[in-house]
Amino acid sequence: MISTASLSDKAQITDITARAGVFSQEEIDSVPVMFDEYLEYGTEGDGYNFLVYREGEQVLGYAIFGYRDLTEGVYDLYWIAVDPNARRKGVGRALVTACEEAVRDLGGRMLIAETSGTAEYASTREFYVRTGYVNEATIKDFYKPGDDLKIFVKRV
Amino acid sequence: MISTASLSDKAQITDITARAGVFSQEEIDSVPVMFDEYLEYGTEGDGYNFLVYREGEQVLGYAIFGYRDLTEGVYDLYWIAVDPNARRKGVGRALVTACEEAVRDLGGRMLIAETSGTAEYASTREFYVRTGYVNEATIKDFYKPGDDLKIFVKRV
Repeated sequence: MISTASLSDKAQITDITARAGVFSQEEIDSVPVMFDEYLEYGTEGDGYNFLVYREGEQVLGYAIFGYRDLTEGVYDLYWIAVDPNARRKGVGRALVTACEEAVRDLGGRMLIAETSGTAEYASTREFYVRTGYVNEATIKDFYKPGDDLKIFVKRV
Repeated sequence: MISTASLSDKAQITDITARAGVFSQEEIDSVPVMFDEYLEYGTEGDGYNFLVYREGEQVLGYAIFGYRDLTEGVYDLYWIAVDPNARRKGVGRALVTACEEAVRDLGGRMLIAETSGTAEYASTREFYVRTGYVNEATIKDFYKPGDDLKIFVKRV
């Protein structure tokens, strides 16, 4: 059900991002760019890794993670997006688990998920806590005044 | 004395990095790559900005800073390197101040300096504290086991 993404998933990935309701226009626009880099360079070096959750031909969600430069074994969990019509089916949790397994397979030892401290992202923060991440650091007013950076960490 | 870097500074910048004694080989190797990007794209978008401190023809130190994606007005102070033969002349402090002025001119409101928690970087951390940065966050074992990430922040 979960596998690495391929070219044919691009349209559905882009569509889910736009419909997820939590991403800024800048973030939405960045997804096809990251996806093209992923297709061109694969998982080598400091590229992006896309995993998709499929039910038949339909993509229900996807995750992006990637190696953090200058570290030994740290990976960023950039984000997880689930189709709003496929919520409460465990898609997000399954994607997190798959990312963690992929990171372990790559010799990684830590995942980092950075998110916002605003009310809008409360369910995202709760999701990370439920899946075993700890809010180890906060930078006030990082994204913009009133919008803190919350760094969630899980050691795998 | 401080100005934006130009092509003719590249060799001295590379040389100072190698001789500074605090950078890993990976970091040393990354400097010419960042410098070429800086020359090609300038300070637009999410590029690197290089400032150099010159005395006549000689470069005594340099600083790299750059806009942090997805933020309003946050800039990373990637690093400051000073020629070991030019220490205790205020070169580092002058470069930090110049970066802060440049960031303000670009409409920025915050600088972030990430460094290591190891004994080797004690003088770097003391330097940031002396120049008004606050260690607002720490991620244990980030760079590698026993080597924490220290995030220093200054609001300008």
